[in-house]
Amino acid sequence: MSGAHESAAGGEFTEIDHVAIAVQDLDAAIAWYEETFGARVVHRETVERDGVEEALLAVSDSYIQLLTPTSDDSTVARFLATRGEGLHHVGFRVEDCAKTLQAVQDAGVRTIDQEPRPGSRGTTVAFIHPKSAFGTLIELVEE
Amino acid sequence: MSGAHESAAGGEFTEIDHVAIAVQDLDAAIAWYEETFGARVVHRETVERDGVEEALLAVSDSYIQLLTPTSDDSTVARFLATRGEGLHHVGFRVEDCAKTLQAVQDAGVRTIDQEPRPGSRGTTVAFIHPKSAFGTLIELVEE
Repeated sequence: MSGAHESAAGGEFTEIDHVAIAVQDLDAAIAWYEETFGARVVHRETVERDGVEEALLAVSDSYIQLLTPTSDDSTVARFLATRGEGLHHVGFRVEDCAKTLQAVQDAGVRTIDQEPRPGSRGTTVAFIHPKSAFGTLIELVEE
Repeated sequence: MSGAHESAAGGEFTEIDHVAIAVQDLDAAIAWYEETFGARVVHRETVERDGVEEALLAVSDSYIQLLTPTSDDSTVARFLATRGEGLHHVGFRVEDCAKTLQAVQDAGVRTIDQEPRPGSRGTTVAFIHPKSAFGTLIELVEE
């Protein structure tokens, strides 16, 4: 097993950091998860550069990340307009975002971010392009 | 906090069980996750009733579930035809699938399964309808 890990281009995923879900009404979605499943919001933040407001609901050591756009030209607004509400991306936790991103790029994988950048709640993040990842928008998250 | 949990209609999520990703070529997707991130396949199974072949790759106590259709009329085949490869559903682990499903139904949430049914790797599962869950196909998973 360790052999497989050592030969991997990027760093190993240590956790599913979050499952991100795009919604039209953040408060309504939070209330549904709270009332139906007792999930609780542990963080809420507006990320201006991404044009989104997010709420994180804790599930064990992972999060449900509910996202809603704060501007009409944000990527989440375009996603909602074309695909509707639903699963938007998945965040995988890694130990070293810069190291993983570099290794992934060296392996020829197309990335959206060329360098790690600040994410919400003080994380360092980078997105991998879905065209290089079987249609899935993947976020690398370093806590 | 415990008050919120006690008042929840359904059971609390104990873990993100899996993130399910629909792909055209299961072996190619497995190889990408293995070679790029050192993920390893811990289970592989064809679920005839759902018309899918799946592979589970371990991430901490959760899984990446790669799905590919085994018949043209399966829901995953239709998903690929209309939306393309990408995130298909999220599985949340619960202690008691039957109890959670009943509570969710009692709360007026629309479900795809009216009763719990066998899932892969010996689990008991039930799906919640995305129209009742802000566009997200949610699977309740009892190990």
